[in-house]
Amino acid sequence: MKRAAVLGAGAWGTAFAKVLAEAGSEVTMWARRESVAAEIRDRHVNESALPAVKLPAGIGATSDLAAAVAGADLIAIAVPSQTLRGNLAEWAGHFPADATLVSLMKGIELGTTKRMSQVIVETARVDPDRVVVVSGPNLAPELAAEQPAATVVAGTDVRRCRAVQQAIALPYLRPYTSEDVTGCEMGGAVKNVIALAYGITVAMGMGDNTRASLITRGLAETARLGVALGADPLTFAGLAGLGDLVATCSSPLSRNRTFGEQLGRGKTLEEAQKAARQTAEGVKSCLAIRDLARTAGVEMPITEQVERVCHEGADPRVAVKMLMGREMKPE
Amino acid sequence: MKRAAVLGAGAWGTAFAKVLAEAGSEVTMWARRESVAAEIRDRHVNESALPAVKLPAGIGATSDLAAAVAGADLIAIAVPSQTLRGNLAEWAGHFPADATLVSLMKGIELGTTKRMSQVIVETARVDPDRVVVVSGPNLAPELAAEQPAATVVAGTDVRRCRAVQQAIALPYLRPYTSEDVTGCEMGGAVKNVIALAYGITVAMGMGDNTRASLITRGLAETARLGVALGADPLTFAGLAGLGDLVATCSSPLSRNRTFGEQLGRGKTLEEAQKAARQTAEGVKSCLAIRDLARTAGVEMPITEQVERVCHEGADPRVAVKMLMGREMKPE
Repeated sequence: MKRAAVLGAGAWGTAFAKVLAEAGSEVTMWARRESVAAEIRDRHVNESALPAVKLPAGIGATSDLAAAVAGADLIAIAVPSQTLRGNLAEWAGHFPADATLVSLMKGIELGTTKRMSQVIVETARVDPDRVVVVSGPNLAPELAAEQPAATVVAGTDVRRCRAVQQAIALPYLRPYTSEDVTGCEMGGAVKNVIALAYGITVAMGMGDNTRASLITRGLAETARLGVALGADPLTFAGLAGLGDLVATCSSPLSRNRTFGEQLGRGKTLEEAQKAARQTAEGVKSCLAIRDLARTAGVEMPITEQVERVCHEGADPRVAVKMLMGREMKPE
Repeated sequence: MKRAAVLGAGAWGTAFAKVLAEAGSEVTMWARRESVAAEIRDRHVNESALPAVKLPAGIGATSDLAAAVAGADLIAIAVPSQTLRGNLAEWAGHFPADATLVSLMKGIELGTTKRMSQVIVETARVDPDRVVVVSGPNLAPELAAEQPAATVVAGTDVRRCRAVQQAIALPYLRPYTSEDVTGCEMGGAVKNVIALAYGITVAMGMGDNTRASLITRGLAETARLGVALGADPLTFAGLAGLGDLVATCSSPLSRNRTFGEQLGRGKTLEEAQKAARQTAEGVKSCLAIRDLARTAGVEMPITEQVERVCHEGADPRVAVKMLMGREMKPE
């Protein structure tokens, strides 16, 4: 049996800890708040993150980072994207020297425009081979309810990828390996922006043709940027591209889609933030992604319109018209 | 102004005729039943195909095939896939010598395992350059309601593709050109089979992770077969692959999805046919597609399970378990 630590007790971290435990690892979760750690440890639930989900009794939990990672072969990190750098600066010294670091985060760091695995490598000062990304159509409440799903385990060290694949394979979770870290991370980051656009069109009453066209063209611009950054174009047709994008857009529970719906109903960014009680990741990431696209010289018309609606007060109806009115071209 | 004929007055043929007329062509529809032709001609509606949709007054309609195609620059064909060969044998002699033949059909001919454009070339005895395929996320009722959508115009003659692109471009329809006829047609045919599988999982109560995984892996096996038949893999990430698949699976109006839902509720093929009052295209196509895959030596696990559920009475719950329990591998 392997020892695994999961850092972060949000919905995704908690569902992933459940998967690891059920697939045979000895799991310790780290939660920022001791009350959450105690709830997991003593009552085997994490009510605020995954209401009504019973966790395996074997999952340990602590608010002491050093204790959580001690002796871990695998450390999964699931903290908010924009806090990763600050957290790791504090934590990295405690990580065992050969542990595999698994990133569960989806986003691009504002300011640096770095992917999460790049922030891990830089801040924890580890070899890139030690970092593995898990990404796919994995809405946490559904995974916790053991509905069948598939996911991608991406890394540059095939041996570590296979170990993570084994560590999370279950009758209801089918993990595939990949060497395309950049592609998997770009798919996960840009899909939040496309899901905002999807929410906008849903609120505007548009049907399945429009929504499917948006998903397809959204994936096309994601792939264009990804390829410019070194990704394999076929990754975007896979689970961490298309799969994650479709799941996020389709789910009425997705935060980015729901946030987009508020904007599509004509709410301002401030009003939507008030209604959602938080800012959706795509609202932040669209700025960093637009910057990456400009630097790479890549056209991302949907991301650009989302950025204009979110940050420049553009009218969503005008944004949709601008997308449809572009010059005709080959696909 | 160009002259266009649309052969077939179902929902898709009627919506396409509306598009052609609004984009500036002089359009004549051919309907098998004179009562339908008269309704279109005199009352500018086609109630049984597109209830409550007002058609442009300029659209002509007739049940006389020779009159419909006389002088046409563009002939769009939208008859049931399995009747195409018989129809063309009768019609082809009337087609003007240089008319572009536009296929709106999605399916594989049983017995011959041929694509619709191949059946057109063979039966109408025309140069393949004269055939253009239009395919994408284009649910007819939504297109008729002028909801924004995009589509692909595929053909081997770039000049003809551009002419068709111009002939259907509208503020609410954005056509892209492509040279990959095989890819566009395989995307359109296999998506009906995947939509059956999607309907089955919906009826079994599965959530967005499962559904998105199914769409992704369904597209992957579609692409594997397409590539073996000479298609460009990237076509499947586009509007005629991913786009059409997502629209068909997402729409509760899709016949194949709805048929799959009946099967997923435990109905037999006969019971589902009785409830639907017809057989979904995917039920027929899955046999031809399975044959194509076997000949090409391509694994299509989802298509295979759909075929087993439809034609061998397999239990859908067992089929899902078999899909999840396959050997783990790279994506």
